[in-house]
Amino acid sequence: MFIDLNSDVGESFGAWKMGDDATISSLVSSVNIACGFHGGDAKTMRHTLRLAAERNLAIGAHVSYRDLPGFGRRFIDVDPEELIDEIIYQIGALDALAKAEGVGVAYVKPHGSLGNAIFSHQAQAEAVVEAICQYNSSLPLLTATGSLALKIAEERNIRAVSEGYPDRSYMDDGSLMPRKYPGAVLDDPNVIASRALYMAQQQSIPLADGAEFSHPVESVCVHGDNFEAVTISRCVRQMLETNDIRIQPFIEPVVVS
Amino acid sequence: MFIDLNSDVGESFGAWKMGDDATISSLVSSVNIACGFHGGDAKTMRHTLRLAAERNLAIGAHVSYRDLPGFGRRFIDVDPEELIDEIIYQIGALDALAKAEGVGVAYVKPHGSLGNAIFSHQAQAEAVVEAICQYNSSLPLLTATGSLALKIAEERNIRAVSEGYPDRSYMDDGSLMPRKYPGAVLDDPNVIASRALYMAQQQSIPLADGAEFSHPVESVCVHGDNFEAVTISRCVRQMLETNDIRIQPFIEPVVVS
Amino acid sequence: MFIDLNSDVGESFGAWKMGDDATISSLVSSVNIACGFHGGDAKTMRHTLRLAAERNLAIGAHVSYRDLPGFGRRFIDVDPEELIDEIIYQIGALDALAKAEGVGVAYVKPHGSLGNAIFSHQAQAEAVVEAICQYNSSLPLLTATGSLALKIAEERNIRAVSEGYPDRSYMDDGSLMPRKYPGAVLDDPNVIASRALYMAQQQSIPLADGAEFSHPVESVCVHGDNFEAVTISRCVRQMLETNDIRIQPFIEPVVVS
Amino acid sequence: MFIDLNSDVGESFGAWKMGDDATISSLVSSVNIACGFHGGDAKTMRHTLRLAAERNLAIGAHVSYRDLPGFGRRFIDVDPEELIDEIIYQIGALDALAKAEGVGVAYVKPHGSLGNAIFSHQAQAEAVVEAICQYNSSLPLLTATGSLALKIAEERNIRAVSEGYPDRSYMDDGSLMPRKYPGAVLDDPNVIASRALYMAQQQSIPLADGAEFSHPVESVCVHGDNFEAVTISRCVRQMLETNDIRIQPFIEPVVVS
Repeated sequence: MFIDLNSDVGESFGAWKMGDDATISSLVSSVNIACGFHGGDAKTMRHTLRLAAERNLAIGAHVSYRDLPGFGRRFIDVDPEELIDEIIYQIGALDALAKAEGVGVAYVKPHGSLGNAIFSHQAQAEAVVEAICQYNSSLPLLTATGSLALKIAEERNIRAVSEGYPDRSYMDDGSLMPRKYPGAVLDDPNVIASRALYMAQQQSIPLADGAEFSHPVESVCVHGDNFEAVTISRCVRQMLETNDIRIQPFIEPVVVS
Repeated sequence: MFIDLNSDVGESFGAWKMGDDATISSLVSSVNIACGFHGGDAKTMRHTLRLAAERNLAIGAHVSYRDLPGFGRRFIDVDPEELIDEIIYQIGALDALAKAEGVGVAYVKPHGSLGNAIFSHQAQAEAVVEAICQYNSSLPLLTATGSLALKIAEERNIRAVSEGYPDRSYMDDGSLMPRKYPGAVLDDPNVIASRALYMAQQQSIPLADGAEFSHPVESVCVHGDNFEAVTISRCVRQMLETNDIRIQPFIEPVVVS
Repeated sequence: MFIDLNSDVGESFGAWKMGDDATISSLVSSVNIACGFHGGDAKTMRHTLRLAAERNLAIGAHVSYRDLPGFGRRFIDVDPEELIDEIIYQIGALDALAKAEGVGVAYVKPHGSLGNAIFSHQAQAEAVVEAICQYNSSLPLLTATGSLALKIAEERNIRAVSEGYPDRSYMDDGSLMPRKYPGAVLDDPNVIASRALYMAQQQSIPLADGAEFSHPVESVCVHGDNFEAVTISRCVRQMLETNDIRIQPFIEPVVVS
Repeated sequence: MFIDLNSDVGESFGAWKMGDDATISSLVSSVNIACGFHGGDAKTMRHTLRLAAERNLAIGAHVSYRDLPGFGRRFIDVDPEELIDEIIYQIGALDALAKAEGVGVAYVKPHGSLGNAIFSHQAQAEAVVEAICQYNSSLPLLTATGSLALKIAEERNIRAVSEGYPDRSYMDDGSLMPRKYPGAVLDDPNVIASRALYMAQQQSIPLADGAEFSHPVESVCVHGDNFEAVTISRCVRQMLETNDIRIQPFIEPVVVS
C-alpha cells in the first residue's frame, strides 16, 4: 500500500520567509510550489525546485489568483477567460525554472481561495481545467475530494486526483467544514496522523457516523505554512511508515535532460 | 537584400491600453512581447501572441526589471543571480502562452533600462546571457549594436543580433546619444525611414562624419509606444520596400504542433 | 436650481495614460481622484490635484479595493477590518498630496466593484462608513442612489450624497440594470444629457413607466474613462446650462493655508 | 544624559510576518514604521501604530522606494520629482492611520537603499527634504550621521537628526563600511551595546584609532528585522540604563485629540 503526501512550499516572497521548505521537502513526496501570484518569486521558486529535484519529488504548480497582498486567500471575481491565461502563465514560469534544474512540473494544484472557489464555481472550475488542457493535457489536477473541478477534469480527460486534509473536519456530504465552526481545524498531531492513516488505508475520508458517501483519496495534504507544520508532517509520515504505507508521489516526477 | 523590423508590443496592462498592436503587427517582421514585469499581463500577452501567430512573426521575449510602476525604465540594482531567475520566469511564462497559440519564443530582447544597463554593466549583462543559456541556448539575444551583452553572448555561443534605432542619434563610438541632448531623438518620419534604409543597405549604423568604427545591424527597431509609432513604422516599411529590401525576421518564427 | 457633476479622474498609472483629465476638470464641479489602489500613483494624483485646485473643484477620494491588475473592477472578499484601514490609507495619502497643493479632500466615493459591493454588502458597507468616521466624520459619502452604504452613513451621522448615472438604465427598484442586459448602458450623448437634466430638475432618477419609488439625486456622474467621455460631459454640461441649472459642487471645496 | 533608541517595525506584509514588533516596541523610544512601499500594509501599519501609541513612542514614517519585491533594498533611479510625491503619499497614509489611533507622525526616516542613496545622491537627497518641507516642515529628518541629506535639511531649516549604527563599522571619514567587507557588520550583543553606550556618552560615533572627524549622534538605531534583534535591543537598553543614560525620543511624540 502507498499514498502521496503533498505540502505547500516556496511561499516566501522577497525578504519575507514562510515555512521550512527544506525540512518539509524531506518529509513529503510531492510539493506544491507557489508561482508568484500569491507567494513565491523567481528566486524562491528556483530554490524550492532545487530542493525538490534533489529529493526526486513530484512538482506541482500551485496556481493562484493574482493577489500577493491577500496571499490568494480572498475570492476574486476574475473573468474566466483571463483566469485561463493567468494559470498558463504561472505553470509556464514554474516549468521554465524547473527545466533549468533538470526537472519539470508534474501536476497542477489550485491554491487557497481559488481552490475553494472551484469546488463549486462552474466557470472558474472550467477555466482551471481548460488551462491544463491548453498547457499540457497529461498533467493531473490535484484538488479537494468532491470538487466540481475534478468532475470537469474527468469529462475533459484530465486525470483527476483527490486529496484529503487530515487536519480538517468534513461534513456528511464530503465538503470541508468551514473554518469558522468549532472543531473545523484540528491541531493534535496524533489525531491528524490517525486520520491520514485512515485516508491512506481506506482511500477515503473519515466522515461522521453513518455517512455512506464515498470519497476517494489519492493524496494527503499536510500544510506547510504554520509553526506546527513540520511536527505534524513528521508525525503523519511516521504513522504511515509504521503501518507499512509507502509514501510516494501519485505521479512519476518529471526529469528532463 | 533583406532586414528585420522589430517593435515592442503587448505593453498594455489591465484596463490601460498602450500602442496599436494590431497595426504594428501588420508592419514589422518581429515583435518584442512584454512579459508582465514592465507591462503586459497574461491576457494581453495571449492576445498579442495570437496577432503574431496570424502574421507568422518572430516572437521575442521582451524581458525587464520587475517594475510596473516605472515601466521598466528605471535602473534597478538587482542581484544578478536573482535577475537570471527573473528572466527565465518571464521567458517561460511567455513561451507557455505562445505554445497555447501554436507558436513559440524565438529570441530574447531586454527592455528599457535593463537593455541600457547591459550595454556596459558586466554582471547584469552576464546574467541576461546566462538566463538564455539556461532556458534555451538556441535563442538569439537581440539588443543595441555595441552592447557588452552581445560580446558576452558570442563568448557563450549564444547568437548575438545587433539592432539599430533609426530614430536615435549615435555618438562616434557607436553608443546612443543620451535622450537629454538636443537632436538625440528624431521625429521626422522621412528622416527616420532614410536612416532605416541606410542601416538595411549598409548593415551598419549611420554615424557622424569621419567615424570609421563599424557597427553591424541585423534588425531595425521601430518604437511601438508613442502616438507616431504607426506612421513612422509605415514610412520605414515603405522606404525599405521601395528600395527592394525585403522585410523578414532575422530568425525563423517558431511553430509548435 | 443647481446640481453637482462628478467624474473620475487621475486613473493613469505610470507610463499608462487614461482619460483626458484636463478637459474633464474643466467641465465638472467635483472630481473623484484615484488613490493608487485601482489606478493613479503619487505623481498622477499630484497632477490631478493641481488641476482641481486651479478650477476650485470639490475633491473626492476615489477609494478602491487593492487591485491594480483588475482596475478595482472585480469583487474581492476582503476582510472588513482590513478594508477600513485600506480606505483610511488611501484618503490620507490623497489628502497629504492635496495639502501640498493648498487644497483638501472634501468627500469619499468608492470606486468600481467596491461601489457595487456596498450597494448591498452589509459588512463592506459598514467598513466604508466606519473608515470615514475614523478619518474625518465631516466628509460626505458619495455613491449610487439606493445604496445600503448611504443608509448606514445616515445612521452614523455621515452626510450621504446620492448620485445618478445618466448613461445607465435603472430597474424599477432603483438599482442599476446589470451591464450584460441590452440597453443597460446608453451611448447617445443627447439621451444621456436629457436624463442628466431630468435628474437635476426632479432631483430623482428617471425610472420606467409606473415606478413610484423616489430616489433623490444630489450629483450626476459622467464617466471619465472612455473615448466618448469628453463629448458626453460637454453635452451634459450644455444641456444643464441651457436649462438654467447651475453646476456646482454638492459641498464646498476644501482650501488649506 | 539621554539618548533615543530607534528601530524599524511594521515590516510585515499580508500573510508574511517580520520581526517581533511588540517586544521591540517595549525596548525603544522611537519606531520607524513601514508605509507600504517596501513593507507594511494598512492593517500592519495600524497594528504597529497602536503599539506605539500605547507606549508613547515617537513615530517615524519609514519611507522607501516603491519596491515590495526588493524590500526597498535596491537602488532605483527614480525621477526626483516623482520621489517627492511618493514620499508625501507615504507620510500622509501613515499619518492618517496614526490619527485614527490618536497619535501622529513625528519624524521621517528614509529606509534601506533610499537611506543609502541620500547619503551622497544630491537629487534624491533634495527630493526627500523637499517632501518634508511640503508635507510639514516641523518634522525632523532622521538618517545616518554624515549624510548629505542632513546638510540639505539644515539649509532648508528642517531639523536634522543624526543616527548611529552600533552594529556597523565605520570608515575614517564617518561613512559606513560596506557590508561586503569582513567586520563590517557586528553581531556580538555586548560589543554592540558598548558601541551604543559610546555613542550616547560621546554623542559621536566610535571611529578607528586616530580619526578626529566628529560625528554627532542623537539617536541609536537597533535593527528590527533579524533573529537577534530582540536580544541585541535588550542588551543595548540594559547597557544604557546601567550607565544612567535615559532612553527617550529625540522629539516629543505627537498626540492628537
